[in-house]
This record gives sequence, structure tokens and C-alpha cells, in this order.
Amino acid sequence: MGPRELSLPMRVVPPDPAGLPAEVTIWEVGARDGLQNEGETVPLDVKLEFLGRLADAGLAVLEATSFVHPKWVPQLADAAELIDGLDQAPGVRYPVLVPNERGLDRALDAKVRDIAIFAAASETFARRNLNSGFDEQFAMFEPVVGRAVGEGIAVRGYLSMCFGDPWEGPVPVEQVVAAGKRLLEMGCHQLSLGDTIGVATPGHVEALLRAFVASGVGVDELAVHFHDTYGQALTNTATALRHGVSTVDSSAGGLGGCPYAKSATGNLATEDLVWMLDGLGIQHGVDLDKLVDTSVWMAERLGRPSPSRVVKALSS
Amino acid sequence: MGPRELSLPMRVVPPDPAGLPAEVTIWEVGARDGLQNEGETVPLDVKLEFLGRLADAGLAVLEATSFVHPKWVPQLADAAELIDGLDQAPGVRYPVLVPNERGLDRALDAKVRDIAIFAAASETFARRNLNSGFDEQFAMFEPVVGRAVGEGIAVRGYLSMCFGDPWEGPVPVEQVVAAGKRLLEMGCHQLSLGDTIGVATPGHVEALLRAFVASGVGVDELAVHFHDTYGQALTNTATALRHGVSTVDSSAGGLGGCPYAKSATGNLATEDLVWMLDGLGIQHGVDLDKLVDTSVWMAERLGRPSPSRVVKALSS
Repeated sequence: MGPRELSLPMRVVPPDPAGLPAEVTIWEVGARDGLQNEGETVPLDVKLEFLGRLADAGLAVLEATSFVHPKWVPQLADAAELIDGLDQAPGVRYPVLVPNERGLDRALDAKVRDIAIFAAASETFARRNLNSGFDEQFAMFEPVVGRAVGEGIAVRGYLSMCFGDPWEGPVPVEQVVAAGKRLLEMGCHQLSLGDTIGVATPGHVEALLRAFVASGVGVDELAVHFHDTYGQALTNTATALRHGVSTVDSSAGGLGGCPYAKSATGNLATEDLVWMLDGLGIQHGVDLDKLVDTSVWMAERLGRPSPSRVVKALSS
Repeated sequence: MGPRELSLPMRVVPPDPAGLPAEVTIWEVGARDGLQNEGETVPLDVKLEFLGRLADAGLAVLEATSFVHPKWVPQLADAAELIDGLDQAPGVRYPVLVPNERGLDRALDAKVRDIAIFAAASETFARRNLNSGFDEQFAMFEPVVGRAVGEGIAVRGYLSMCFGDPWEGPVPVEQVVAAGKRLLEMGCHQLSLGDTIGVATPGHVEALLRAFVASGVGVDELAVHFHDTYGQALTNTATALRHGVSTVDSSAGGLGGCPYAKSATGNLATEDLVWMLDGLGIQHGVDLDKLVDTSVWMAERLGRPSPSRVVKALSS
């Protein structure tokens, strides 16, 4: 007799859950952050099936696409068609990325009611990714957030390069907090702190979260967004959970990758996150088997295996 | 201009290092745990060069081989020749695995002064891996430890399946603590708590460490040994560090894999551990560039890429 199929992950609630949230909202970014750097554009019908499967697996927030100009992100040039073709599941949110007022116009035309803007915590990345100065980016976002909030649309603020920037090196904690507060004061309901190139470690995460809280920002206004370039994504996420953060960005199968990071390793894999949450007894609402099936299916579409350890283990 | 070479990992000491050790001893298991399940036996000269490179990279404890009967682990059948051919670096320890008195005899003949025994925390794994009952295994190890300690040889006790067992499911914390204490009372100077199939999560790690400490065992007597089957190895290790554990088992390049685990994913990669320790400002003595070069070299010998994220990122 071989080893039996374990009913794993085992749920073992820690004796002292010190600061851990009872429930985590997984902000699934696979369809947007995961696919935006694909060499070959994924066909619209595959994207739609992907989103349908993710909703069926229990994910309640699905970042669907981006209304960035197709010249910059041709992989998501079908944003309007995607929103139009989307069979929105009840209770599921489908936020989209909006870079500027033109993008907001397109999103509003498509009847989107949930958006995210994408700011930079460093001067160089603001210039390179937004073609704007560090201070000027806020002037660019202000009318976007103002108009959206005025229409009752929820706006999330992404802040990228919160830990290190490939041109500048370490990004000072005070600079990140100052930038984040400007986004919140502008009207964003939530700030997603992005480790765009994957260089954060747990002490740095702790330092940044403490600095935000010390500046008056509530942990309930913060989300974390880690990339696994150096294998630290889950550990950094666990650190954030211990500090009370309860919204975590991740990508089904670990899809994605930052063109400025050295390797193609992508976002924190949703499956690896779910495994840990299960072990900690933290609620998340996701059916792991369905999610793994979805990532295996998507890996076949993309022609390469998922980098998620859980996907590998449960599909082998 | 492209992104510059970052002098990373960035050292960011947490504002509240709460319980973190100032220094960590990395118990490098690549040459033993990493190679013992290889489909093709690695040639002796490659093993010797591997150990030489690891010592040169600053690793101070190199588990070198195993004196298990060659019938069971043919990959390490050259244990005596390896020890004989080893150019031992000053200040570096080269422990070997010893399963029983016959193995101890062979190790003593080879002039080994540092050994480890390998016990099971579950009844089924004791039967399957040691061909012994749970209680009987201690009777088997007693003369091994007794004779070794009598000769002034340091004995480490591995305890495998400390979290879950592929046949029994979750292994009760009390059972693990009881087994571990028997090994310590027998004369082992250190206990390495093994998650042989990679199913542990941070709350479970915390529960087990607290139970050991509550039973009177000092954290300085404990080491942790995680496999990355479900992507949890580094997170579990970080949890152990926060509870004061300062000896961590890992494998260069993430070599290894348990034949009872579902996927081929191996041990915690030493490189990914070093990256985190650097970020936390914890001393470890390892030269990361040399270590990555070694893992890339070994990956070429084995004909497949290292699963370590850091190796991938720094060698791409």
C-alpha cells in the first residue's frame, strides 16, 4: 500500500494567533498582473474562461484587466471587449487598472464600477513606468480618483517599488509612507504595497507596516503584493498577516513576472497562499482543488508549467 | 540605461527583532539529503568538488554522506571513499548519517567524529523507513548513541515526519515531543525537527516549538528541517527563527526530495534562506555569489535547473 491521499493541508490553528486575521480577502491578480507580460497575447476567450473558473473556485475579487493604452500593454488591448463579454458572477468584484483620465473614460464607457490606479514609490520608476515625475504623478491621478469617487466608484491605489527599485536600490520607508498617504488622502479606499521586483524580506515588511500605522494609516486600509523573485513572497505575506493585514494580492499558479526583475518568477501563487491560510485556520473561501485545476489548465494554454509549489505537488 | 546591478539583498534590520537570533548556523544537507534520492548516482569526484565548493562558500557544517547500507541508498554507497578523499577545510564540520551499529562501525573505521541518527516521529514511518516499531527504534539507536558519545563523538538526532506522515496524516504534537525527548535523553546534543513531506504551516511549527519548550527542552537544542513541497519551507523557517531556533537545515540549490512526497520539490534552498537572513541582518557566514555558482555548477552536473528562486534570479 502506498501513502494514502492526505486530506491536506492540515488545519492547525496556532495556540497564540497573535494578530492574525480571522479571514483574508485574496485579491486575485492573475488575469491582469499575471497576463500583462506574456510574450504572446492570450486570446479573449481563454481570458474569459480563466476568470469564470477563478470565480467558480471561490475567489471574490478578480482584477480583470487594464485600461492602459494598448501601445504599452498590447496583451490587455482587449479590455473593453473583455468587460463586455464577462459573465459576472454574483458577489464577485472585477476591478480594472486605470492609468489616467483617458483610461478612466474607457473604463466608464465599459460600465466598470471598481478601479485601481498604479503609482510609483520611487522617482525613477515614476519616470520610467508613468513618464511622470514622482510629484507630478499625483497631479495626474488626482482627477482620476476625484471623478471616480464622485461617481461612487471604489478606487484602489497600487504603490509599486515599495521596498527596492532596480535603478535606485532600497526605497526609504518614509518616502513610501508619504506616497501612500497621498493616495489615501486623494480618496483611494485601499493601498496595495507592491514589492514589484521581489526584494523585500520580513524585517523590511515589518518596518514599512509599522511606519504606516505610526503615521495614522489603519491596517485595514493596507494590502500587500509580493513577487517571488527571491523566494520571499509567502514569508513576507505571513509577516504582513501577523501585523493585521487582511487583504493579500496573489496570482493563480504564480502567473506573472516583472519585466524589470531579473528572473521570470512571478507573483505570489494563490495556491501556496491558500495552503498556508488553511494551515493557520484563516478563512478565505477558495476551493483549492478547483483553483489548482484552473492553474493546470492555464499552464497548458501558456505552454509552460506553473511555478507554484502547490500546483506542482497536487497535480503530479 | 537598464536597471543597475543591485547590491542586494538589502539589509534591513527589523525595528523589533523580537526573539530573532543574531546568528544562524546553516546545517547544509545538500551532499547527503540532496543527493540520496538522485536517479543516477553522482560520481565521487563530483561529490568531493561539491563539498569543497560549499566549504569555500563559507558553510561551516556540511552533512557529507550516509553510512546506511548501500542496498537502501546506493547513491551514497561510496561513503567510506568519500570521507577518505575529503580535503577537510579547517573549522568545518562534516557530520554523516549513521542508521545503526553496523553503520557506526563503518563511520568509526572512516575516522568520522560527527554523526547523526535518523528516527521517525510516527509508527508507520518507523516501520517503513527503519523496519522497526516506533518504540523499538529507540532500542536500536541507544547503543549507537551510547558508543558514539562514549568516544566523544557528537550525535545529532533527526526526527522525521514531525508534522504529517503520508500514511497516518497529522502527527500529534505530544507524540513528536515524547520521541524527541527520548533522543535527547539518550545523549543527542541536538534535535532536527523534520517536515519530511513538506506539509507544515507556521501555526503548526509554532505549536510544536512551544510544546518542546514547555516540556523543558531548550531552543538551543532544536534545529528545523523543512521541505518545500507546498512552498512553505522558508515561512516555516522564519517562524522557527522568531521562536529562537538558530540552527537551520537547508540544501544548496534546493537539492533533494522525499520519495514519499508527491512532487520532486526538495529541501529549503540554502540560497533562499541566506537571502532572508541577509535582509534580517542575521549573521550566517555564507558568500551568496559563491554558493549560487556552486548550485549552478551542480545543476549542470545533474542535468536540471535548481528549484531555488534565488539561484534562478541571480544566474539569469
